[in-house]
Amino acid sequence: MTNSLILLHEQDDSGILRLTLNDGARRNALSEAMLAELGAAFAAAGNDPAVRVIILAANGPAFCAGHDLKEMTAGRAGPDSGKAYFAMVMDMCSGVMQAIVNCPKPVIAEVTGVATAAGCQLVASCDLAIAATTAQFSTPGVHIGLFCSTPMVALSRNVADKHAMEMLLTGDMTPAARAAEIGLINHAVAPEDLRAATMLLARKIAAKSSMTLATGKRAYHAQRDMPLAQAYAYASGVMVDNMLARDAEEGIGAFIEKRAPLWQDA
Amino acid sequence: MTNSLILLHEQDDSGILRLTLNDGARRNALSEAMLAELGAAFAAAGNDPAVRVIILAANGPAFCAGHDLKEMTAGRAGPDSGKAYFAMVMDMCSGVMQAIVNCPKPVIAEVTGVATAAGCQLVASCDLAIAATTAQFSTPGVHIGLFCSTPMVALSRNVADKHAMEMLLTGDMTPAARAAEIGLINHAVAPEDLRAATMLLARKIAAKSSMTLATGKRAYHAQRDMPLAQAYAYASGVMVDNMLARDAEEGIGAFIEKRAPLWQDA
Amino acid sequence: MTNSLILLHEQDDSGILRLTLNDGARRNALSEAMLAELGAAFAAAGNDPAVRVIILAANGPAFCAGHDLKEMTAGRAGPDSGKAYFAMVMDMCSGVMQAIVNCPKPVIAEVTGVATAAGCQLVASCDLAIAATTAQFSTPGVHIGLFCSTPMVALSRNVADKHAMEMLLTGDMTPAARAAEIGLINHAVAPEDLRAATMLLARKIAAKSSMTLATGKRAYHAQRDMPLAQAYAYASGVMVDNMLARDAEEGIGAFIEKRAPLWQDA
Repeated sequence: MTNSLILLHEQDDSGILRLTLNDGARRNALSEAMLAELGAAFAAAGNDPAVRVIILAANGPAFCAGHDLKEMTAGRAGPDSGKAYFAMVMDMCSGVMQAIVNCPKPVIAEVTGVATAAGCQLVASCDLAIAATTAQFSTPGVHIGLFCSTPMVALSRNVADKHAMEMLLTGDMTPAARAAEIGLINHAVAPEDLRAATMLLARKIAAKSSMTLATGKRAYHAQRDMPLAQAYAYASGVMVDNMLARDAEEGIGAFIEKRAPLWQDA
Repeated sequence: MTNSLILLHEQDDSGILRLTLNDGARRNALSEAMLAELGAAFAAAGNDPAVRVIILAANGPAFCAGHDLKEMTAGRAGPDSGKAYFAMVMDMCSGVMQAIVNCPKPVIAEVTGVATAAGCQLVASCDLAIAATTAQFSTPGVHIGLFCSTPMVALSRNVADKHAMEMLLTGDMTPAARAAEIGLINHAVAPEDLRAATMLLARKIAAKSSMTLATGKRAYHAQRDMPLAQAYAYASGVMVDNMLARDAEEGIGAFIEKRAPLWQDA
Repeated sequence: MTNSLILLHEQDDSGILRLTLNDGARRNALSEAMLAELGAAFAAAGNDPAVRVIILAANGPAFCAGHDLKEMTAGRAGPDSGKAYFAMVMDMCSGVMQAIVNCPKPVIAEVTGVATAAGCQLVASCDLAIAATTAQFSTPGVHIGLFCSTPMVALSRNVADKHAMEMLLTGDMTPAARAAEIGLINHAVAPEDLRAATMLLARKIAAKSSMTLATGKRAYHAQRDMPLAQAYAYASGVMVDNMLARDAEEGIGAFIEKRAPLWQDA
């Protein structure tokens, strides 16, 4: 994988891919260029057997400031006042968020600074999120007359309605500790411990069977919105197929024999 | 707007409408008369451009005791043992709850005392809720053989299943601090700070574009139960329309130019 | 009801049925035999008017270790490598979990020790759960190549996505205090207080009308996944029927007359 200027790729031997937003001058905004890079990176990582888990991090004081408002404003120059352009950008952005959800590899957000609007959505879309206690989260679109309607899709699937509505209607910043309380992130840790905490989590997950992780992540989202009986019928089928897979036979055998398992793709 | 005896209306210059349940003799029960007043008040406020945000408060030690059981019992006198009457009352009550959810203006519950049964449902149905630490919440229908089945519709959409079930199966009181922990309310504050806390929140929201708030609140509920891909397709369309609206152009322009925005309806 | 060796039945005069997993040698695994016993016990209890509430407890240091992996491994010997056998076991297990959800009597988990995989699912499937502070919860299938796909159906309906994903992707143990924070259980109490806490809760519920509890529990799950307007239409109908039932007339009458109600089935 090649490094771009605005999205850095670093992969280690244990299967951990670190993607780092690196456009500090624009507060890591989700510009067209950044969205294109992220979309390509998640697509590539999803198909790369060397990638077992992905960390999404950021350089600079801001984690991600959401859409690039100057770019959006320039888009108004079109004959349709920007309608087609905005639709294209929203489509790209929603595509990236869903690429994270649908990526067969677990994705962990490592949140250093503020994550606002679509930047908050990015964190909400990851499977797991660890933030520095100095990080903050908001959906501040109401301040500028543009409700954070797409960020709320991810936000409202992470936290209780009253908590989501407070963020959306006020645009106020939610400190990391409070974000952990309401379920938007998993844990808030001291800034100096953030990278170690994320790496510890990533290493644990990278030690699992990739086939098993992909099976489970896909099944999680597939069953999430089904009625209970349908969810059980579906998940039972997933379990049966998983039992018949080589890595489950190996894993269960290793457990019974009290030895470490050796995964097919390791 | 006129003041009734059991539901007081006070509107200030900044667009904050305060509706106050004022039937202390009946512990602010949701009598037929009260339901009719509330339904009319939310309908009128929804259409009144002078109203930007609504606070739902109460006079007296109880916030709201739910249905008026003496009135319900009198309803049994009908030839059908009250069946048509109960259906009418439930329909009115569910209508008021949904009028709050569907009202284009954000609604904040300011909870002073106990909120029980449909009174608890009223709080759960508001967009935001701040309570005094002395407030308490319960769904006590099980004590009288009448499960809080309609209150649970709102309750189960606010808190985790185990927490909802504990309230519903025991009928026990949940203190405000615990209600905040489980997500039924946003915050619990000292009784003497309650009004100031609610007003602070209301003023923040009243300073936003009403068009933007209405767009977002409607979209929140519309996307809430959609599968993810459908929710994103829908919300992206909402964002595009919102971008093309005058208040977003003004708001984004003001942000880039570092000045205060001037909303169309302000 | 007869006692088996691996599932003990104890019923007291107040309508509390205590089912105790008693297969300590297998860490109370959900073997075929245990699943059959549990399925039969919940079916019988659901139809037994003497049972008003059920406590699911366990003997031995483990609450329940999930599926019996040795039994599952032996199932691989079939001509289809175990496919039909695994499907049968998953079907039995999902049937037991849904029997708890669909049982007209409230079910309380009393969790002493570790509850893992389908054991964690068992706790998540109960209406209420109280655990000793020494108890722990996990979905450790990823350790053995077999993602906890059926446990996640129950888990993901109890806790926020980020919390569910952390348990599922890492397989790590969640201590009881944290399980209470994320909503997987209602409360964590000192081990020496566990039985008293569960019994207090069970006695409260056993004092209610069984008709009312059954009505409410069924309605809870029926309305849970409906859109709001449909949920209100449904729940309003449930309320009307409940109002017309003898126990509601008695309960409301007793409340107005300030006397204790006498339930039909008490």
